[in-house]
Amino acid sequence: MNDSISDLTRRIQTFVDARDWRQFHNPKDLAVAIAAEAGELMQHFVWQQPGQIETRVDAKRDEIASEVADVAILLFEFADNLGLKLGEVMAAKIAHNEQRYPVDKAKGNNLKYSEL
Amino acid sequence: MNDSISDLTRRIQTFVDARDWRQFHNPKDLAVAIAAEAGELMQHFVWQQPGQIETRVDAKRDEIASEVADVAILLFEFADNLGLKLGEVMAAKIAHNEQRYPVDKAKGNNLKYSEL
Amino acid sequence: MNDSISDLTRRIQTFVDARDWRQFHNPKDLAVAIAAEAGELMQHFVWQQPGQIETRVDAKRDEIASEVADVAILLFEFADNLGLKLGEVMAAKIAHNEQRYPVDKAKGNNLKYSEL
Amino acid sequence: MNDSISDLTRRIQTFVDARDWRQFHNPKDLAVAIAAEAGELMQHFVWQQPGQIETRVDAKRDEIASEVADVAILLFEFADNLGLKLGEVMAAKIAHNEQRYPVDKAKGNNLKYSEL
Repeated sequence: MNDSISDLTRRIQTFVDARDWRQFHNPKDLAVAIAAEAGELMQHFVWQQPGQIETRVDAKRDEIASEVADVAILLFEFADNLGLKLGEVMAAKIAHNEQRYPVDKAKGNNLKYSEL
Repeated sequence: MNDSISDLTRRIQTFVDARDWRQFHNPKDLAVAIAAEAGELMQHFVWQQPGQIETRVDAKRDEIASEVADVAILLFEFADNLGLKLGEVMAAKIAHNEQRYPVDKAKGNNLKYSEL
Repeated sequence: MNDSISDLTRRIQTFVDARDWRQFHNPKDLAVAIAAEAGELMQHFVWQQPGQIETRVDAKRDEIASEVADVAILLFEFADNLGLKLGEVMAAKIAHNEQRYPVDKAKGNNLKYSEL
Repeated sequence: MNDSISDLTRRIQTFVDARDWRQFHNPKDLAVAIAAEAGELMQHFVWQQPGQIETRVDAKRDEIASEVADVAILLFEFADNLGLKLGEVMAAKIAHNEQRYPVDKAKGNNLKYSEL
């Protein structure tokens, strides 16, 4: 039930409109808010070494989930405000990545497509 | 058809597994990549003044859509790797925000919930 | 007295070494920490409209100063760890910007050098 | 010669004023630009594993130096615009960190001060 991008987007826009917040939610300020929330998500992992990451995730699962939701909510609204179908642009990008990163060249390494 | 979070997530994980990339996609490196891509999205709006934002969006719609997709793809994977149902955590956060930002107090202003 | 980049850098490295933190402060983790702190600095301005920025700065001057210091301290250390003289790379970049943004073309507009 | 924060700051402000850019460089847009440039710096390390970081630094030293300079130049201007002496706020923060992270507790671990 909570799996539909368009349903969630509708709920987000209803929330925003009920508070008359569209006046603040221009594309620039949304992009800034997305980056700021992505920074908060990343904060949970600053200085963490490889062997510490799983412990950190377990200890902070709820806070991390909350940050993930913050980024996603703003991203869904941003895409909708630009008239983009988020699922469509994602599917198109996945298809593009499949071409840029052919399995036989990309498998098991972390090179950028321009370095393959 | 491209509207289901779980369908898109499955496609993303199939892409990642076919390239044996799970070894690189630990939560920390995914969070870092999400923040870096959110930074690229924001780059389109640096120094842009209020009256220039719509023109910028029109001129760069495809690049912006591509950046939005990058952030979303990584975010869907991140949530799934942590065993989170992204749609559920989003719905829970929307409900939480409805309580933190009651319409009668939040309408028409951009105060933080802690300042309402 | 607190105006010398090399003096401040020495004080930062003494602080780091006394705590045996060089093992954590590799270039990647420093770059991640710098971006995370820059995100915290930006957080103070999320959703703020043009007419609200000065009030925000006045209300949060100490917190903002503290975030600026966090970014700067990590940046000084990062540059030093890479064997860069921060002041030299800054001076070189300012000179480069003077060429990329000639006064007669750049004056009064916010176009990128590639758009001038 | 290029070691004085106030000298470099003066040169930056002269550059900005010659182009009449102060109108764009309000604290919010400067903070956004700092975060965007810090994101570009971090981009060089996305997906890089511990054993790859030094090679990356060697291969991209000039680009990385250029990104460091970009962040620093904006940060020096930001501090000055707020009437802050950057060196002073850095020295104050280093002193504060020395108290928050006593050597006997902080040595050799990467815990936050609130966890010590």
